[in-house]
Amino acid sequence: MIHNQPPQASIKRMSVYLRHLNHLLSKNVKCVSSAEIATALDLNAAQVRKDLTYLGELGTRGVGYHVKKLRDSIIKLLGLKTIRKIGIIGAAGHLGGALARYPGFDKHNFKVVALFDTQNIGQEVPNVGIIEHIDQINKIVAEREIDIIVLCVPTNVVQEVFNKVQDSGVKAVLNFAPIKLISNKDIHVQNVDFTSELETLSFKLRTINPE
Amino acid sequence: MIHNQPPQASIKRMSVYLRHLNHLLSKNVKCVSSAEIATALDLNAAQVRKDLTYLGELGTRGVGYHVKKLRDSIIKLLGLKTIRKIGIIGAAGHLGGALARYPGFDKHNFKVVALFDTQNIGQEVPNVGIIEHIDQINKIVAEREIDIIVLCVPTNVVQEVFNKVQDSGVKAVLNFAPIKLISNKDIHVQNVDFTSELETLSFKLRTINPE
Repeated sequence: MIHNQPPQASIKRMSVYLRHLNHLLSKNVKCVSSAEIATALDLNAAQVRKDLTYLGELGTRGVGYHVKKLRDSIIKLLGLKTIRKIGIIGAAGHLGGALARYPGFDKHNFKVVALFDTQNIGQEVPNVGIIEHIDQINKIVAEREIDIIVLCVPTNVVQEVFNKVQDSGVKAVLNFAPIKLISNKDIHVQNVDFTSELETLSFKLRTINPE
Repeated sequence: MIHNQPPQASIKRMSVYLRHLNHLLSKNVKCVSSAEIATALDLNAAQVRKDLTYLGELGTRGVGYHVKKLRDSIIKLLGLKTIRKIGIIGAAGHLGGALARYPGFDKHNFKVVALFDTQNIGQEVPNVGIIEHIDQINKIVAEREIDIIVLCVPTNVVQEVFNKVQDSGVKAVLNFAPIKLISNKDIHVQNVDFTSELETLSFKLRTINPE
């Protein structure tokens, strides 16, 4: 049960807590305090406590949180109790191909169930599947119950491809193209923009060595 | 000249403004208002105006901003007047290899000048260079004046590799491993964490179809 809708920033931190808790579990740690979590992750302890209140009454004053219970609550909050099925568009390209082969999805309860492109149709990505034509997307999304489409297509075609994705009935998209997608439906979009991260680094370097 | 230190969130938006202004320039647009920028990027107009004040007095009331001047000011603020040189560690892997071949760096004033790994040494990435051993990093960082190291290595070795990067004298790191790196030096780290973005999408899907 979700007690309140946590804000986007808290949701991002839930991912970070989840990783840390998995790490603690792998080391057989049973209990952890919000202060310990905050220190390990370089966050503010009050912020951590506030975030964890969205999970309900899990902590005990003076004792802290039961690591496994806290982990399971976050998994539930993030909707990761069932595996989320992913389709990758642009799977014949460098980035899409790299993501298709990314070994970390399983560990995070995601599974790649479809690979789309307009070229290299029929080519196999070992242990994942074959590349299928994007014109098949409506049928494949329905048949394989795809939850999330990952868009790894060039910037100049991404809006056109996104329109097809919207029509397919998928409700969530992860976009790697550095462009704001225009949506006309009830669809969630998250963007991964590493050139923006590089530009932030460039800014920070500039403040070390001003031009 | 930087008038004030803009906060991290403003810096992120500067990257977004920069792309939009380049887009406007490509369409020969000469002037733009903060309201127009806000609408196109789905941001708050007051926020946009506030961000742009960090660039100095560039706007004219009732007229707006001169697109090219605004673009050039952002490029200067982000330290992108000179090309930023990048080294990729993990270039023999899927993600590192994909980034080595990413065609968008040039357009954003970044240039890949070195590829590192512990395997496939001597293998060539066309138009970029050959893969060199990470043990050469100190020498190569100094010779080629590398500004930013991109870390595309597995989570279980990333801290060890990061320690070598810190010793090399590089001041900025873009990390793709989903882990918080522990730094003991004056080095800037930005993280690209796409599993965290997927988890955010999963949460949003959950609020559509609660379990």
